[in-house]
This record gives sequence, C-alpha cells and structure tokens, in this order.
Amino acid sequence: MNRIFTLLFVLLLYTPVMAQHPCTFFTRNEAAAVKKNISLYPVLSKSFTDIKNSVDLWIGKDVDVPFPKDPAGGYTHDKHKTNYTLMFNSGLLYNITGEKKYATLVKDMLMKYAALNPTLKNHPQATSNSPGRIFWQALNDANWMVYTGMAYDLIYNSLTTTERKKIEDGAFKPEVDFFTHDLKNWFNLIHNHAVWACAGVGIIGIATYNQDYIDMAMMGSDKKGNSGFIALMDKLFSPDGYYTEGPYYTRYAILPFALFANALNNSNPSLKIFEHRNGILKKALTTCLQQTNSNGAFYPFNDALKEKDYTSNELVTAIDIFWKAYGPDKNWLYVANKQGRVLLNNGGTAIAAALAKAKNIPPYFDYKSIECSDGFNGNEGGISIFRNGKGKDLTSLLFKYTSHGLSHGHYDKLGIMLYDKGNEIITNYGSVRFIGVEQKYGGRYLPENKKYAEQTIAHNTIVMDETSHFNGKEESAEKFHSDKLFSSYADSTVQVVAAKDDNAYPGTRMQRTLYMLDLPGGKKILADIFNVQSATTHQYDLPFQYNGALINTSVKYDANTKKLEPLGKKNGYQFLWKEAAGTAVDTLVQLTFLNHQTYYTISTLVLDTAQVFFTRTGANDPNFNLRHEPAFIIRKNGKGQSFVSVIEIHGKFDPVYEFSSNAYPSVKQIQLLQNDKDYTVAEILVDDKKLVLAQCNNSVDEKQVHMAAGFTWTGAFTVIYNQQKLK
Amino acid sequence: MNRIFTLLFVLLLYTPVMAQHPCTFFTRNEAAAVKKNISLYPVLSKSFTDIKNSVDLWIGKDVDVPFPKDPAGGYTHDKHKTNYTLMFNSGLLYNITGEKKYATLVKDMLMKYAALNPTLKNHPQATSNSPGRIFWQALNDANWMVYTGMAYDLIYNSLTTTERKKIEDGAFKPEVDFFTHDLKNWFNLIHNHAVWACAGVGIIGIATYNQDYIDMAMMGSDKKGNSGFIALMDKLFSPDGYYTEGPYYTRYAILPFALFANALNNSNPSLKIFEHRNGILKKALTTCLQQTNSNGAFYPFNDALKEKDYTSNELVTAIDIFWKAYGPDKNWLYVANKQGRVLLNNGGTAIAAALAKAKNIPPYFDYKSIECSDGFNGNEGGISIFRNGKGKDLTSLLFKYTSHGLSHGHYDKLGIMLYDKGNEIITNYGSVRFIGVEQKYGGRYLPENKKYAEQTIAHNTIVMDETSHFNGKEESAEKFHSDKLFSSYADSTVQVVAAKDDNAYPGTRMQRTLYMLDLPGGKKILADIFNVQSATTHQYDLPFQYNGALINTSVKYDANTKKLEPLGKKNGYQFLWKEAAGTAVDTLVQLTFLNHQTYYTISTLVLDTAQVFFTRTGANDPNFNLRHEPAFIIRKNGKGQSFVSVIEIHGKFDPVYEFSSNAYPSVKQIQLLQNDKDYTVAEILVDDKKLVLAQCNNSVDEKQVHMAAGFTWTGAFTVIYNQQKLK
Repeated sequence: MNRIFTLLFVLLLYTPVMAQHPCTFFTRNEAAAVKKNISLYPVLSKSFTDIKNSVDLWIGKDVDVPFPKDPAGGYTHDKHKTNYTLMFNSGLLYNITGEKKYATLVKDMLMKYAALNPTLKNHPQATSNSPGRIFWQALNDANWMVYTGMAYDLIYNSLTTTERKKIEDGAFKPEVDFFTHDLKNWFNLIHNHAVWACAGVGIIGIATYNQDYIDMAMMGSDKKGNSGFIALMDKLFSPDGYYTEGPYYTRYAILPFALFANALNNSNPSLKIFEHRNGILKKALTTCLQQTNSNGAFYPFNDALKEKDYTSNELVTAIDIFWKAYGPDKNWLYVANKQGRVLLNNGGTAIAAALAKAKNIPPYFDYKSIECSDGFNGNEGGISIFRNGKGKDLTSLLFKYTSHGLSHGHYDKLGIMLYDKGNEIITNYGSVRFIGVEQKYGGRYLPENKKYAEQTIAHNTIVMDETSHFNGKEESAEKFHSDKLFSSYADSTVQVVAAKDDNAYPGTRMQRTLYMLDLPGGKKILADIFNVQSATTHQYDLPFQYNGALINTSVKYDANTKKLEPLGKKNGYQFLWKEAAGTAVDTLVQLTFLNHQTYYTISTLVLDTAQVFFTRTGANDPNFNLRHEPAFIIRKNGKGQSFVSVIEIHGKFDPVYEFSSNAYPSVKQIQLLQNDKDYTVAEILVDDKKLVLAQCNNSVDEKQVHMAAGFTWTGAFTVIYNQQKLK
Repeated sequence: MNRIFTLLFVLLLYTPVMAQHPCTFFTRNEAAAVKKNISLYPVLSKSFTDIKNSVDLWIGKDVDVPFPKDPAGGYTHDKHKTNYTLMFNSGLLYNITGEKKYATLVKDMLMKYAALNPTLKNHPQATSNSPGRIFWQALNDANWMVYTGMAYDLIYNSLTTTERKKIEDGAFKPEVDFFTHDLKNWFNLIHNHAVWACAGVGIIGIATYNQDYIDMAMMGSDKKGNSGFIALMDKLFSPDGYYTEGPYYTRYAILPFALFANALNNSNPSLKIFEHRNGILKKALTTCLQQTNSNGAFYPFNDALKEKDYTSNELVTAIDIFWKAYGPDKNWLYVANKQGRVLLNNGGTAIAAALAKAKNIPPYFDYKSIECSDGFNGNEGGISIFRNGKGKDLTSLLFKYTSHGLSHGHYDKLGIMLYDKGNEIITNYGSVRFIGVEQKYGGRYLPENKKYAEQTIAHNTIVMDETSHFNGKEESAEKFHSDKLFSSYADSTVQVVAAKDDNAYPGTRMQRTLYMLDLPGGKKILADIFNVQSATTHQYDLPFQYNGALINTSVKYDANTKKLEPLGKKNGYQFLWKEAAGTAVDTLVQLTFLNHQTYYTISTLVLDTAQVFFTRTGANDPNFNLRHEPAFIIRKNGKGQSFVSVIEIHGKFDPVYEFSSNAYPSVKQIQLLQNDKDYTVAEILVDDKKLVLAQCNNSVDEKQVHMAAGFTWTGAFTVIYNQQKLK
C-alpha cells in the first residue's frame, strides 16, 4: 500500500511544477478573497491588523541580520527567529495590500541573508549532531527555510531576474546543500525534525522552480522514497494518526506537514496530497486535539511542556489550512475561537466568518473516549483515553501502552494519568525545561529531564528494583512495545482496558486492567488491577503522583520532620525527598487529597506487608530546576505481586461558601476473591454495596464463557454492582 | 461624638418598635416588588429559582433537627447550618409566593428547635471559652439566631399565638439567655463575634417585639452602651472603614452588620442607622472591596484563607442591602456580576435590573491607591495600598503598619506584599486551615497557624534574632501600633510611603520607606529602604516570600541536595527547610524568578557581609498541613543595618509562542550615597540611567528644604531619574 502510494507520487512528481507565484502559502485568488473579507469578520480583521502593526514598525528601517552567535533565548537567535516571521508577514501584506513597501522590506532582508549565508559554518553554540548555521540547531534553520521560502515566493513577482538569482544562490542554496549533503543522515530520518527539513527544502523548491529540491524533499536526498515527506507521512503516524512522540510533538510536527502539504496542493493539486493515506493529516490533527485537557494543554505523553496548549501558532496554522483542505469541523471551530486569531488564507477567512456568529460556537470541545494504535502499521501498542462527562465536568483517564517514542520517549509502560474538571489529578511530571529562557541552559531540555522526568518513578506505573523500564536505555526501549489485551468503551457506564508488557523488565510480565465506572447515582470510580509476575523475587514500587493537598490517610507513618533525605540514589529516586514512610499489613490503605474543590481517594489493597512512602520532588536539584510535587508510593516484594486500587472522585470543598460534603471515601473494603494466571476477581465494598470486577487473564475471546469465584460471565471481563451486571 | 450618638440611640430606642411583620429581612411591599420583577431580570429569576429548588426538595418531608454532637464538617454541624438557611429561604418563599406550605415547613422546624433548645448544655465538642450549644462554638449559634430570627419574622403572620409563644420561649429564649447571661463577657466584646451575637439577639428582639432583647443588642447586656451594636459600629472600624482584623474578617463581620442594620432600618427608619458615623458601614464595604486582588480574593492581612473571595454570601448580602441603603455603585455592580446571584430584596432587584443590560457592567473593578488608618480614632497606624495600571495589568503594593488585629493578628509590622497581573508575587502565607474539612482538625485553624503563619518569618519584614515581633505575644502586640511618617500617592509615577515601628523589638527602631515608581518607558520598579537600629548587636533577617520558579541568582550558594534540615528551631523557623545558603560580600545580590508569564527580580545591596538562605515551608509538618513555598532570606548582623532592595517587574515568558523577552534585570548597581539618622540617599543604576532616592529620616515637613549627598530637595523625599525630578 505504501509502496503503491510512493510510486504514484514519483510519477506525478515528474510533471514539472507550473504554478504561478504566489503558490506556497496562498494563491493570487486566495489573497484577493482574504482582502475582500477583512472588514467583514472581526477575527480576520484583528489578525490582519496585528500582522500589519507588527510589520509596519519595520517599514523603512534597516533590519539587523546579525552574524549568528547566541543560543536559544539570546539576541541573534531571537533576531533571526523574528526576522523570518517578519519576512513572511510582510510578504503576505504585499499580496493583500499590493503595496510595494512590503515587498521591498522582504527583498532587503533576503539580500542580507544572501550575503550572510554563504559565509556561515556550524553555529558556535551547536552542541548536537545536527548543528545549525543560522541557529544553534539545524531544526531552527529548517524553520527559517520554511518561512523564508514562503516569503520569497510571496514577493517573487516583484523581483528582477538578477535579484532572484542572488537570493536563490546566496540565501537558499547554501542551506539546502547543507541539509541535503552535510546533514543528509539527519535530513533522511523518520523523525519530526526531518518533517521540518523536508518542508524547508520542498517549499524552497516550489518557490524557486527547483525540481531537484522538490524531489529530495518528497523522497529523501537519494530520491528513492525511503525517506522524505511521503515516507514521513507514511511512517510517523499510526493509521489512527497517533504520533509516537506524543501530542506535544504532533503539535510541532503538524505545522510543517500542513505548510508543505498546502504548498504542494496549491502548486500541484493533482497530487491530492491531503487525501494521502486516507487523509492521515486530518487524523493526526483530530487525534492530537483529542489528546488535550479541557484547558487546551496537551497531555504529557513523553516529553511535553505542560504550559503548551492548542492556542499555539502551529495549531492555528494546521486548523486554518485543514479547514480549507478538509472542510468545517465543530471542534476545530471551538479551538479556533480560543485561539482568537486566524491565518490570512481561505481557511482562516471561513473560520472568521463562522466565528462571527456566536451561536455557531460550541459550548465545549467534544471530547470522546478514544483509542489510538501506535506504530505506522498500527501494531505497536497504543493509548486509551476514556472520558466521562462533558464541559466542566469532564473526567479523563489516560493509559499508555505504546512503543517508546523516539528520543522524547519516557520509560512509562502501562502508565496512567487522570484529569478531572480541567485539573491534573494523577499526573506525570512532564518535561524539565524552561523553553526559550536563556538563563536555564539556553532554554534547552535541562539535565533533570533525562535524569528524572523520563524515568519510570516520575510516572504512575510499576518500578522494579528501583530501576527504570528497559534500564532507561533508549536503544533497548525502541525495540519493544506493550500490547493491548482487550478493551470496551462504547458506553460510559463501564469502560475497560487491559494491556500487558513483557519487555520493560526481562523475564517479567506486567498486566494492568483499568475500569472506569459510572455507578448508579453518578459516583465516578476507577479501579486498577495491576499484576506483575517474575521468576525471581523483586521489589515493586507503584507510585501515584497525586496533585493536591493531603487531607487524610489510613496509614500510620513516621514523618521525617527534622531531616529529609532522598528516597534513593539513582534512576530518578535521587530527586525524591522522603517526607514520610510507613508499613501496612493486611489492610486497605487509603489516601484522600483535595484538588481545587473536589476530593479524591486512592484506596489500595495490601495483603501481607507493604511499605508506603510520601515523597516530594526537589532533592539533588542544586539549580532549582524542579517543581516540588508529591507522590504516594506503595512498595511490595515478591516474585509476583498484585496492586488492586480504586480511585474515587468524591465530594465538594467550597472555601467561599465554607462547605464541605462527602469528604470521606465510599470504598470500605477491597478483597481479591481469586487471583491467578487465569482469573482475577476483586470485590470492592462501596458504602454498603458490593462491586465485583471479574476478568480472565488468559483469553480475550468475546464469546468464551468463564466461571471463577462463583461468578459466571461471557467475554474477557464482567462488572457486577449490587448483584446486577453493570452496563 | 460617639457618646452623643449613643445617647441619641438610647432615646430613640425607647420608642417601642411598632413595625408590621415581616420587617427583619424585607417588608411586605418589598416582597411584592420582588415578586413582580422575578420574571423580568435573569439574575433575579435565577436566584429565585435556585432558592425555590433548594427548598422544594424538603416540602412535605420531616427535616432532621439532630441532637448536637459533631464538630465543624460533621453531620449535626452541617445539618443545623443547612437548617437555618432552609428556614430562612422557605420564609422568603412564603412571602413571595404566598404558599402556605413554605410557612408550614418553617413552623415544623421551629417547633423542633423549641423542643430541643431548652434541653441543651454546652456542645460536647466545645473547646473555646465561648462554647456553643447547637454548634461547637457560640459564633455558629449566633449565625443560627440571625437566620432563624428572620425566618420566624417571615412566617410570624401565619402562626397562632400559642405557636408563637412556644417558639419564642423554647427556640429563642434559651439561646438569648445563654448569650446575655452565661456568655455575657463574650457577648459584650468589641470583636466580630459580638457583632453576630448582637445581631442574633437584636433580630430575635425585633421579630418577637422584645424591647429588652433589642436594648441589650444595641447597648450591651448592661444596656450602658459601652458594648453592643452601636459601640461595635463605633469601635470596630477606623474612620476610614478599616477593620483591624483585616479584610477577610471585614467580610465576615459585615454580614451581621448589614442584616441587623437592615432589620433596624425596616422596623425603625428614624434611627437612620445607615447614616451612623458618617455612613461607616458603606466605608467598611468600600474599603473591604479595595483590599482584594483582581481575582476577587481578599488580601491576607492577618488570618485569611486565600481562596475566599468577594463572591461569598456575606458580600452578596452586604452589597444588595447597601445598594438599597446607599444607592448604586459601579464597583458593587462589577462584583455583583461576578457573584451571579442576588438577594430577593429591593437592592437585589435593582442590581438584577442593572445587570440585565451588558453595557452597564464595568470592564474591570476600579482599584485605586488608598490608605486607611487603623484604630477607631484613626490614630493607630494603618495600611497603604498603591496601585499602578488597571484591569489585567494592575500592580498592587501593600504595606502594613497597623495595630495588631486582635486574636487574628499576625506579627508583621512594616510587612509588604506585592500583587501583579492578578497573581501573588511577594506574598504572606495566609492561614493554615482547611475550613469546614472535618479531617483537618474539625475545619478549625490548625496548630501551624499560630506556630508558623502568624510568626514574623512567614511575612516580608525584618525578624530580629530569630524572634517574632513582640516575641509573638498577643497581649504585648495589642498595646502598640506602627506609625506612618509620610506618604504621597496622588500620581502613579511616584508613590511613596514611610512608616516606623519602635515597639516590635524593645529598644529597636525599624523604619521602612517604599517607592513604587513608573519610570519613563513604562518600567515598573519598587524600591524598598528598610533601616533598623538598636543599641546592641543583633541578627536581622529580611525574608522575601516569592512566588515563582527561581530562574537565576547572582549569589554563589551551597545547595543542600542530599540532606535537608530546618533553618531554625522556633518562632516559625522550624517550619522552613534550608534548601541552600550562601555568603555575599560587598555586592549586589539578585534573584530572578518567573511567575506565570512575567519575570521579577529582587536586587538587594550588601555592604560588608550578608548570608542568604533559600528556604521552603514543610519542615516539622507531620500532618501535611502546610503548602511548600519558597523564600529568599537575607541575614545581616550589627547594631544597625540597612536593607536597600529593588523589585523589578520585567519581561515576558510565553511558553505557547516559545518566546522570552527582557528576562534579565535592568538594575545594575545600588549604592548608598548617604545613610544616617538624618538622611538616606540611594543611587540605583537602571540600565545606564541613574535613579536617586533621597529621603529625610527625621522630618516629614512638606516645606522644609534638605541637602544631602549633593542633592537639594523640599519635603520628606525626592526621586530623581536621569537627572530629572520624577513626578
């Protein structure tokens, strides 16, 4: 299938590109349509005015094109970054207003780059094996190429032949050659950086009528199709549009996908690039947006800055281009309204028109329960996201059983997260990075990102022997993925998913089943059955990174009130202060915490003996890079262990009305009626009613009949509440 | 003056109350007017429907009136609390709808209280010297009396004479007697609890035609006028309407003031109670609202829960009653819009009518620079609140030089706080309390409130020898207050205030001058000159409780990465983990932190040697009662010391756009050109421009001419920027 697509593209690409300028960002007709509508729709008019104001500041001025020197956050870095945006925006204004001054501004800057670029060697601050020339890393040079390529195309018609040659040879050729020769291994990667690189080379190719550039962009520097833009479309996303680095990086990758696809579509519509792989780009956007919290922030699957949300420029661009390519979408409109600005293209104009009528705007984003496979063939595990409720009352349970996620992957097989009412409840740390802040390591990922945030203990899954999954080695982790066993989420009353992992710890099977239940009366309960089995004896830690104020716990503990020491020495444990520790024997351990106005209780069954730890991040952090966040860790020992836990969402705390209700958990007891390689049957006493979770551990057959612990059911699992099957 | 008022009231009060029922909450005509308007104005109609829905749940049901047993947050506590609200609301509905069932619901409940109350002794959970009977503390019994008294008045006309007698003798008399005899010392206090107590007794007096009750409520149990409602109006507020316990408690006290004043005004308008003391109740409300952050939360002067804001029920009641008494106010309307609900009275109806037109609603609360004196004669120090900017760009600097603030006072003479863009920047801890949360010490103030939150080190002012002001003794602190020396804040370019304290540490003079400046170009800078002088050598700590992520500091420090210990052993120091410490010699110490999207830098001058500490709350906290918040503490030694600091608000961090600008401070140097008992002249290098602050330390004469360090000026201070006087 992919082979056929690739061949098709190779054929089509032999057709010389004949498009008129401009065509990379928009066409002449599109520019005229934008112009006509500017005064009609407030968001379009605001977007135009913002761009005009930002560009007009520079008209008639000599814009600095400095010799590259500083890392991210420094002057030359920021200047080159604002420069390419300025050139692009000024190019837009030239086409919309027809005013020559805007073309002149771009031309003068391009001429400076034409003089500068041939003199550049690797950037003095370059630290990676993909160094940049204008910037410290090649990725930023690719950003420059994408926008500067479009800017050139936008003013192409205003230039003389001599000017064009000077710019193409001086500003562009050194960068394209650098990418496709010096950095060709990087250029040919299947990785989000390569999307930017191919888009940069390809857009310059289209803007300069350079078929060689376009072919390399589409099919890799050897033009064989194993790399390049089409291969990236085929291999970076799973068939569901999941991107293995996670939604924070989908956000980043989708911008060059959108811009280059748009340029290709404008210049060669017969390619039908937006239809490629059943509209994979649309799926990528849809999937990415579903992987956000209701405040718009991307879920921190793998490296992610939690402050980043869907109002980012990348998603403005993607939504406005895809609206034009794929047609209207209610969720996109909801997001566009939050974004408060649009592209100056057909999509942006249509969105601005839709936003002009308040009744068009949905009251909330329509989050749904979804599952996405990982891997370009869809057979490398995946994620499940279960939802219950909507708008402000949305609850989302996240379960990750994907492959590793390349260099931004975290070691968190079978990890979970919980969001409720717009807040993080059971959370991952995210990334340790202050993006763009020069004082913090030039804005790059901080050392604690690898040392802590990526490690297993920073997540909500089992850590064996205080060692991260795959011993924290990316090359090992990249070889494997977890696997889903079964799931069911058609109805929000009972949503269930089970997955396993056999590789994170060699010789050890981890199997986790999550039940997200909506009990009669509206009580939201999550049950979590996590079995781990090894041939030899180990220590197993299950952390819950909870976000809130500790209200109460049933465990007797010793608090380290006079002296704090780290919980461990390595694999992330060295960053956790051990605030308190206790021992629990044959009991139900409960911890209630308060987040905003809601109580949450984790209840977990302890058979025999377990230790519990109350920790907080911040140890071994001499540069104050970490936030200080609590975790509750349950430690058990043995060949195999079961962690059976319930997370309850309950009650209300209202400090304004000074009212607290249902502050105590309803879970009174958890029992394992049966737990072996064939079956797990757990009985949970919720107030005075019995909730039974029964599952088969060795078959996912939907029609098979099972009997265990006195219960009979069909299919992999059943849920019985108050003696009735829950459904 | 107060004596004359009191006598006047004594005379007027001899006039028997002749009002018809209802009259405590509203009159018959008022009820009719509300009814007529319900369908016209959305907020009124929503408020009515909410009340109706909450009451209708109970119609025809037998409402439990349990024997008192539980502390705050427990069942019997919450039940009695919801009961009095239910009775009051049902009484309202009876008058508005005329439906008998609402009167019956109230009557049946009152009969149960008539049977219960005579059997009650002190509550089993009572711990204070003002025990309650229905609740654990008398204060809650007073709440009950206020609302139940109004409920009785609201259904008075529906009752038979026998029923009335049963209720008056059974439900009310035991409570009134308990207050005015058993608890008379408490009832006669000049304290916010007494406002509730007097309002309770007084409203019951009006509702039951009991002049004896009314007289005790107005003039104290001995009817001599040294206590009671009039004395409370005279003595609890300063002439500016400042309430010594702080705005969090103004909020609490203003409710019974409003309700009882309203009942008095309805039943005896000739009293002109709302005009008493030049409209002191209006000033109290205005002052209280000015003491809020732009998110509506009350500033934490003294004990305060930071979650509490002006949408609380108390301020809905006050605003809606005062609107009727004092007429419309734009700020009140802004707040009423945030509240989203109104009282079912004339004021609420008028507000709902105003809110029905969106153009009436101001875009932001009009915060102004204000100063308020403390003490009922206005001669016990006060507070200064300086503002710059408006709406989302508001900056507020708070300076406290008040008297102690009764039992809720904090030991923070000359303490400061800073708010910017709606966020706490330099902050106090507030209170250690989870209000209404039974698991947290029955919802009461936690032990750490006295041990930490009230102590000096939890604030932003000098701590001498690791001992709190007045050695943390309330009886000593209550004897003294700080004093303002001079201030000027008519123009936001230069706002200045100086105050001194001679009593917090005997034999020690503390003098602090704050400059809030808006430099040409829009740079906001705060300068802080804090001189302390003693006859003997001491250790002086100046903490900055900063709220944000530490980005950078100029101090070399040793971080305690492997082991944390508390900074000290007592007076609050035992709750601070010492995360890092360093020594600075003859230098400018700078610390930059990031809060949301803005950078803040504290620059402080060190002459000779200072130690600096980076701390975080959380030590000695076995019950996890504290939040974990950082502070930066500068420690100096000597007989006298000067702390000259600048707080800069600068730059922007945008994680969505990945942009950081002006992340570095502009302050390059601070010099003390002169500093002695007569003058302080500081020169601050802001980028390449000199900012000179010159002040006289021994005269506040506005016309006196001074010469020091080569500068000549008139009045207590001058500010010179780039060789020009700043104004």
